[in-house]
Amino acid sequence: MAGKTTRQSGERAKLGGALDTQVSRAFSPGVVHPASVISVTRLTLDDVEQILELTTVLEREPVERRSKRLAHRRVALLFYESSTRTRTSFELAAKTLGAETTLVSALSSSIEKGESLKDTGLNLKALGAEAIVLRHPNSGSAQLLAEATGLPVLNAGDGMHEHPSQALLDLRTILSWKLGDKLLRGKVKVSDTTLRGVTVTICGDIFHSRVARSNALLLPRLGARVLLCGPPILLPEIAAELLPEKASGHIEVRRDFEECMRESDVLMMLRIQKERLQNLQLNLSEYVAEYQLGPGRLAEFAPKALVLHPGPMVRGLEITAEVADGAQSAILEQVTHGLSVRRALLVRALSAAKKVGSA
Amino acid sequence: MAGKTTRQSGERAKLGGALDTQVSRAFSPGVVHPASVISVTRLTLDDVEQILELTTVLEREPVERRSKRLAHRRVALLFYESSTRTRTSFELAAKTLGAETTLVSALSSSIEKGESLKDTGLNLKALGAEAIVLRHPNSGSAQLLAEATGLPVLNAGDGMHEHPSQALLDLRTILSWKLGDKLLRGKVKVSDTTLRGVTVTICGDIFHSRVARSNALLLPRLGARVLLCGPPILLPEIAAELLPEKASGHIEVRRDFEECMRESDVLMMLRIQKERLQNLQLNLSEYVAEYQLGPGRLAEFAPKALVLHPGPMVRGLEITAEVADGAQSAILEQVTHGLSVRRALLVRALSAAKKVGSA
Amino acid sequence: MAGKTTRQSGERAKLGGALDTQVSRAFSPGVVHPASVISVTRLTLDDVEQILELTTVLEREPVERRSKRLAHRRVALLFYESSTRTRTSFELAAKTLGAETTLVSALSSSIEKGESLKDTGLNLKALGAEAIVLRHPNSGSAQLLAEATGLPVLNAGDGMHEHPSQALLDLRTILSWKLGDKLLRGKVKVSDTTLRGVTVTICGDIFHSRVARSNALLLPRLGARVLLCGPPILLPEIAAELLPEKASGHIEVRRDFEECMRESDVLMMLRIQKERLQNLQLNLSEYVAEYQLGPGRLAEFAPKALVLHPGPMVRGLEITAEVADGAQSAILEQVTHGLSVRRALLVRALSAAKKVGSA
Repeated sequence: MAGKTTRQSGERAKLGGALDTQVSRAFSPGVVHPASVISVTRLTLDDVEQILELTTVLEREPVERRSKRLAHRRVALLFYESSTRTRTSFELAAKTLGAETTLVSALSSSIEKGESLKDTGLNLKALGAEAIVLRHPNSGSAQLLAEATGLPVLNAGDGMHEHPSQALLDLRTILSWKLGDKLLRGKVKVSDTTLRGVTVTICGDIFHSRVARSNALLLPRLGARVLLCGPPILLPEIAAELLPEKASGHIEVRRDFEECMRESDVLMMLRIQKERLQNLQLNLSEYVAEYQLGPGRLAEFAPKALVLHPGPMVRGLEITAEVADGAQSAILEQVTHGLSVRRALLVRALSAAKKVGSA
Repeated sequence: MAGKTTRQSGERAKLGGALDTQVSRAFSPGVVHPASVISVTRLTLDDVEQILELTTVLEREPVERRSKRLAHRRVALLFYESSTRTRTSFELAAKTLGAETTLVSALSSSIEKGESLKDTGLNLKALGAEAIVLRHPNSGSAQLLAEATGLPVLNAGDGMHEHPSQALLDLRTILSWKLGDKLLRGKVKVSDTTLRGVTVTICGDIFHSRVARSNALLLPRLGARVLLCGPPILLPEIAAELLPEKASGHIEVRRDFEECMRESDVLMMLRIQKERLQNLQLNLSEYVAEYQLGPGRLAEFAPKALVLHPGPMVRGLEITAEVADGAQSAILEQVTHGLSVRRALLVRALSAAKKVGSA
Repeated sequence: MAGKTTRQSGERAKLGGALDTQVSRAFSPGVVHPASVISVTRLTLDDVEQILELTTVLEREPVERRSKRLAHRRVALLFYESSTRTRTSFELAAKTLGAETTLVSALSSSIEKGESLKDTGLNLKALGAEAIVLRHPNSGSAQLLAEATGLPVLNAGDGMHEHPSQALLDLRTILSWKLGDKLLRGKVKVSDTTLRGVTVTICGDIFHSRVARSNALLLPRLGARVLLCGPPILLPEIAAELLPEKASGHIEVRRDFEECMRESDVLMMLRIQKERLQNLQLNLSEYVAEYQLGPGRLAEFAPKALVLHPGPMVRGLEITAEVADGAQSAILEQVTHGLSVRRALLVRALSAAKKVGSA
């Protein structure tokens, strides 16, 4: 079997072309595929505008046509943390576009066997996955996976780092409330003045929240003012300073929730995890007294504000049932916008994948 | 941003119409959607007849046509308890009708984060779920979910309360044995005399069984006589009295299994959970001696009876392998009828959903 | 209700025909369906040739056509052990052929309720499953399931017994490297000389590996020489003698990895599980020194050999990252061949199922 290696290279090159077409669509390892969404900081305002436009196009598209958009395309959902909401949202987004999905979750996976994220990603790619949706407890994991595979990676939450699709859906919820019909006609112009005059309070466990972080990084770039509000233990004084320069001018760290409410057009409430409170020696009833969004407080200090919550809610802790289900709440609209936005991110990821391949 | 709230209401109303079409198909929160199946007690005999008729129609329908029945429709499977049999049955029923399904199970869900059933349900609805199949350890949870969401809810077992699709599939198994061809021609008339002269023994852990409960509530309404049989610790004397008045006339609490067998046309055996026996200080070998359905006992006391078991069986405990696999057993037919009946329940739920929406 | 039993038999026979068409496609219980793949020892070389041919046909088939191959067919994935790689591979193989799949995994199943494998299998069959893919910790379980159900069973790993689809994909990877284009043109002739002159070293935890076992049983029948290599604790001296007579002539037990490398065309590295090493009191650094495949050793002793690994890898233990990602590695090609081979096994299983039924 002389000349094996030489022939091998040639043969394998040919074979690769025939077998593994998705590889040619992917970028080289080491380079993050440009249709990845790892962090909102890497999306330009043009990217955001295009994503929102595509979201609306897909939303208005007849279901018969939309359901063939990603026919025969393969999307892997790689979830190292349990997350019904985000997983179900991405899964239904992919399925309703006609894609084949496969779910790999920590509980039922080789992950416990010590396989690296890189190898799991490469394995999914070799099985034909053309995009990967990743939820992972470590900050930076989405970046690592994107570099390792060259595939479009959609970050569905990486540690305390980012949750960009959540920020995009929150943005769309705010825009749909602000613009209404214009949004649906797909004419939204996204610039640094789009949210001028809009003040958004994010209240709760800011320190541990990738949702807070992604929103705080995105909304000010469109001109919004963001007030981060909570007790020091959940929101260190230096929080705003850690954010990129451009954003920080529009971000303030505040302690008085009622004062924030008075100034706000949007109130984004974050979940307080009871187990975290115990560790933090934070007094629960004090927290409720100062930061819970209840109907009395809402009527007195922000009777016109839009109420958001990324879920899951702990009713009776950071928010009461009356407010969650009340007229000012857009919490369920957020979920629906999430499905729509994620459809756009998937179509964007896989269209780009194709274009790259044919180029 | 003056006049925000006024515009907001208008905009959000428009937006809701465009975004969230399934909402308009749903009933208002607080009202149980009429195509829900929460309890057999709320099904009229006409309902039962229509469900059985639809079951047969779907069973005979060419697979190409049937597989498009629920195309582009979305069904959520929400399982707070593990249950391969029921979950797989509903899942395949939905998929073979062309529906998109998403499975949310306790092990991989936000449930551990303390989110309420109500919020999980509302979230699924906002993601486009048009019907929810629910398995939950708490009695009454299906009712709660139906009220909270306004969606059709199919109760796949709620605590020790009910398991109505099991009772319907058991009914169909009994009817198919009694009527044969007539059932397949779709001409079954369901009335209070349909099962006149048929005696059904339900034997085993009656006290903890939602299967027993649903059957005991349904079969007597069609004229069957039901004998509940087991030791006092698994079947308290007052069991029959706790059932609704109408049914109780046809229900008896009995202790002697062989005596019951002599009088029975149908023997429905229930699983005995070993861990439960330990807690109850019930002697296993005594139980086997008195209540196990083995080939000798069957041949002697009920050589013509139909043998049923909802599964999972513990072979060698409540039933022997010979009987489970024997000529009188219709245990696997039950499974097949289950798939068919659940197809009908799903089509019924989603057709009604549509009709409601267009009305 | 006289004459019940007589009528019952007739009725149930008719009913069975109408309801449960997949039963007629299945073999009688007790007989293993011939399209099952339980062990490579039961595949003739003709079988292997046909499977490889079908693999290539499916690989080259236009995706639109291929994706309808198993439309409306139902495949159950029954996994009693977690295995992302194998499960995902079979699942995507089935889905990309258009089949409906349902996943039953140990974590979310009735398995914990003590239900037998037999009953779980019969239940899946009664739900319409036409083939079952099984992963199970007990050797012999695939055989048991095949006998119990009469359905085609694809063994996706049973205890320390076999993992036949892995051996087939490894074979195809070796053939594609040896033959290149010829393989893709579907002209591979499989005989006892096909791999004549090819030496394959399998190195690592041979004793616990069903992958090693299936390869050692298959490759020598095609003429390959197989060197099993590892320390005695992971590879007892009698290993080769335990294999069937025919194969053992081509199999040697060896201890010196570098010596094996010198003679080898293919190096198949097996995972070493850390927890196993602890129990075995095997010294990790000694193992690495003697058996790790690193770039220096590879360049010196086998610069032209093909490197394989069934995964999941423990980078830095049995193999280094440089080699795993290097030019000689075909580890990801293995994954892609796995998807292709499993498609062929599924089509073969379900085509046979149909032919049997119509006969």
